[in-house]
Amino acid sequence: MIDKNCAYCMEGELVSKFGIPVCELPASKVYLFREQSHRGRVIVASKHHVSELVDLSDAERDAFFADVDKVAKALHAAFKPKKVNYGAYGDTGCHLHFHLVPKYEDDEFEWGSTFAMNPDRKYLTQAEYSALIAAIRLRLK
Amino acid sequence: MIDKNCAYCMEGELVSKFGIPVCELPASKVYLFREQSHRGRVIVASKHHVSELVDLSDAERDAFFADVDKVAKALHAAFKPKKVNYGAYGDTGCHLHFHLVPKYEDDEFEWGSTFAMNPDRKYLTQAEYSALIAAIRLRLK
Repeated sequence: MIDKNCAYCMEGELVSKFGIPVCELPASKVYLFREQSHRGRVIVASKHHVSELVDLSDAERDAFFADVDKVAKALHAAFKPKKVNYGAYGDTGCHLHFHLVPKYEDDEFEWGSTFAMNPDRKYLTQAEYSALIAAIRLRLK
Repeated sequence: MIDKNCAYCMEGELVSKFGIPVCELPASKVYLFREQSHRGRVIVASKHHVSELVDLSDAERDAFFADVDKVAKALHAAFKPKKVNYGAYGDTGCHLHFHLVPKYEDDEFEWGSTFAMNPDRKYLTQAEYSALIAAIRLRLK
């Protein structure tokens, strides 16, 4: 099912407001989050327009979290965060996606805490975004 | 491996500060979060003392998220939230656990947003905690 009002279903301009495509995996699509207070922050969005993980079959859930795992490992390899945080919210949306948010102890921003939906404090140049995306793709191969 | 400083490894008094045991599942232990701004909020803690989901084998990861799925379905059945949020942080700890946080549109608290690690605004009586736990256990059977 595709929802014409859903950024993750429609992609293009709707998703471009907050994310830049990184790659497609078996069960998901990956976007670099434009707000980069946390270096390497991405979104892993299910290929299914479902509200939550409870709406997936067992096999679909396993495949989705295999993708989340693969992306998180790529973030660890590329950026060496001390921790990656994982969060799925979307109270007012209906398309399963997880925020993967690298945390850096020396950076201190939101260290030891949760993370804001969008801190709206750090955006990059296109060249900087491209470098981050290349670093992630390299580790996803 | 067991870490003697880890609440999820040691349970008992350490975990009792913030959680009350609900049940044990194949890959996890479930705790009702004492802070109940979000009715039915629980923690699903891995039986493995690992930092993140990336530290589990594929089979362990599948089993862990099967438990998360089962608990989330029980929360939906018991409390009818509009959405359940899922979050794993633990920057300064090393034991994989997810917060499962029911969100209610009519309640409005943190609706449409993320959720605080601990809003520290709503605690219940033991009888009220027991009633919530009984409601969750009933749906886990």
